[in-house]
Formats: sequence, structure tokens, C-alpha cells
Amino acid sequence: MDTVELRVETGSRACVVELTVEAARFVSGRGDGLLSVFVPHATAGLAILEVGAGSEHDLLGALDSLLPADEGRWVHRHGSRGHGRDHVLPAFIAPSLTVPVLAGELALGTWQSIVLVDTNVDNTDRRVRLSFLSGS
Amino acid sequence: MDTVELRVETGSRACVVELTVEAARFVSGRGDGLLSVFVPHATAGLAILEVGAGSEHDLLGALDSLLPADEGRWVHRHGSRGHGRDHVLPAFIAPSLTVPVLAGELALGTWQSIVLVDTNVDNTDRRVRLSFLSGS
Amino acid sequence: MDTVELRVETGSRACVVELTVEAARFVSGRGDGLLSVFVPHATAGLAILEVGAGSEHDLLGALDSLLPADEGRWVHRHGSRGHGRDHVLPAFIAPSLTVPVLAGELALGTWQSIVLVDTNVDNTDRRVRLSFLSGS
Repeated sequence: MDTVELRVETGSRACVVELTVEAARFVSGRGDGLLSVFVPHATAGLAILEVGAGSEHDLLGALDSLLPADEGRWVHRHGSRGHGRDHVLPAFIAPSLTVPVLAGELALGTWQSIVLVDTNVDNTDRRVRLSFLSGS
Repeated sequence: MDTVELRVETGSRACVVELTVEAARFVSGRGDGLLSVFVPHATAGLAILEVGAGSEHDLLGALDSLLPADEGRWVHRHGSRGHGRDHVLPAFIAPSLTVPVLAGELALGTWQSIVLVDTNVDNTDRRVRLSFLSGS
Repeated sequence: MDTVELRVETGSRACVVELTVEAARFVSGRGDGLLSVFVPHATAGLAILEVGAGSEHDLLGALDSLLPADEGRWVHRHGSRGHGRDHVLPAFIAPSLTVPVLAGELALGTWQSIVLVDTNVDNTDRRVRLSFLSGS
């Protein structure tokens, strides 16, 4: 298994950060296998979405509606407002994803991008682990 | 890694389509390993559910409630009503699933079925990729 | 692939049960590869969360709010109150997780724990399958 850790700057606002280019570069030339994408943080998740047509915004809006930042609601409370819900997010947007790789290319559909979903505004320096398990 | 792409007709209504038989047939005789199920579409997901007792209906109802089709809510809007929420769905119902395989059989529980969850009514011709990574 | 099945007593209340110690012990000494965690039950899921600071409680509260136990809402109804929503839960909190393993150690972040999420109060005897696919 080959593995590498990316660093991602997420800034001080909730965000959706595309990782597809980095993932494609990592698997390039590797034949067939499975790509594991993994975020070693307790307040972020991974998703496969279309980007560039508004769905990043729609997802963050849906998260605000389904898991409101509202301080009073959450037992886990320290750091910025909404940190309690940031800790529930990974149960719904898991920090682990697997993508098949064929002949060194991600088997994504035309409109699919791999993204980091991060509502945590207190930690702007994120890591993402890419691991390739060969099946060639 | 062995891999195959299924074609699934989903019709013109939101639906939950069982894929367990196709997945079981694909891994049959293959020994131990991991089955990756992957949908290369940006408006569909995969789940493991009991089918045949109403949970398909309950899931589509829960999605209508949690991610309402309501046109005005979504930035991403083209195609049929609700298309914006179809694009948020894969963040919650991911298009990637991994199932352990033991002696050529899916290690599913008695009541578990692998299903495609598709609320998109504009694309009725879907593909699902099955890939087997051997650990034998 | 090496595989083992754990037994977990979940009691008669909705609960979040940590599995990290068992998973770490299982992969110990195994080199690099992917750990698959899989729950062969139709009314439970797996997540990666921080535990011990209230997020277990927050997650169960969020589930009560997003998928209310309310009997009348669900087509699938047998067993205890809320059983219908227990059957929808795995679509959102999937019963399958993959975690990279490096030099025999789970590549989890400092605050991440692997947990079983189980709102079903009718089945207190649960199994969890751990499988390790070596990439060494």
C-alpha cells in the first residue's frame, strides 16, 4: 500500500474543498486497485459531489438546517459557536471514502468530485490521507 | 482486481433498487476479499437496508423531509423540480460502499440488502460498478 | 484477508459503543493495509467520532430530531416504538467503514474513535466484523 498525507488550508469559514486533482495525481500510473481517502480529524468529512454549480453552497446550507450551529443544543461545547455540531457532522458525512481505480484513473463519473467538507472554523490546517491498495 | 459495470433502469420516480443478487453473483467463487460498490453519478447513493417491509418508502420519505425538493431552496437548479437536492443527497447517502466477502459470499446480515438510492427523475439509465479486491 | 467477528452488548437503550480498542488490537502487528469494519445488522451503523466530551449524546439527540421515533410516520413498524426509524438509520449512518492501517496502527486522528451507533432497543446482542486486507 502506498500512502501520502496532503495538507489543506480550509480558512476560517465552513467550506467544501475539492481534492480530485490531488487524488487523480496520486493514483496516476498505478494500475487497478482501491483508493482510500481518509481525514484524521473529528470535525470534518468527505463527500463525492458535483462542484461548480452551487451544490457546495447547498450542502453547507443543508448542514446548517439539519445540524444547527445553535449553541444551546449541543452538550459538546468548547471553541467557536457551532463546534458541538461540527463534532456530529462526521457521523453523517463520514471521514472515510473508497474510490475504485482502473488503469491508474479514478473511476469517478463525469460530474463527480471528491471533496473535504469542513464546518469547523477553529482549525484551518487540515490533513487528508490518500492510500492506494493495488489489485493488479 | 476484477471489476464490472451494471446497468440499472431506475424509471421516472425516486426509487430504491436492490442490487444484492447482482453483487452476490459477482463475488461468487472468489474467496475472501473486499467488494467495492460504486455509483459514478452525482445524484444517487448506495445504502444497506432491509427491503420488502416498507423501509424503502420510509427512506424516500425521510429524504423528502430532510432535503425537500422545494425549488427555491437550492442554488443548483436545472432539470426537474428537486434536482438541486438530488445533488446534495450523495453527501449523506454516499455513492461508495465496501462489503467484506468470505469464501465467495457477501458477509451481509440476514436482513441486509445493498440498494441504489436514486431521487433523480431525469436520468433513468444508471450504472453501478462492482470491484473485488482479493485478500486470498 | 484476516477477519474476526466481535460481539457487542448494546443494552436496552439507544447507544454509541466504542470499538477503537478492539480494532487497534486486531490490526496490531499487521503492517500496512485497509481495515474494514462492518455491522451485519439492518438497524445499526458505524461512525468515527470524538467520544467522552458529549458528542455521543449529541448524535443520538440529532438522530431523534432528524429521524423521530414517532410511530405513525413509518411504514415499517413492528417491535418497539421507533423501530421503523431504526431501519432508516443505516442509510445515513452506514454499517460499513474503512480505515487505513500503517505499520500495524490505525491511521486515526487524535480525537477519532470508531463507534457502533445503535438506536434499536430490541436487539441487544450485536456483532461487528473486522477484516484486514494487507497491502504490505
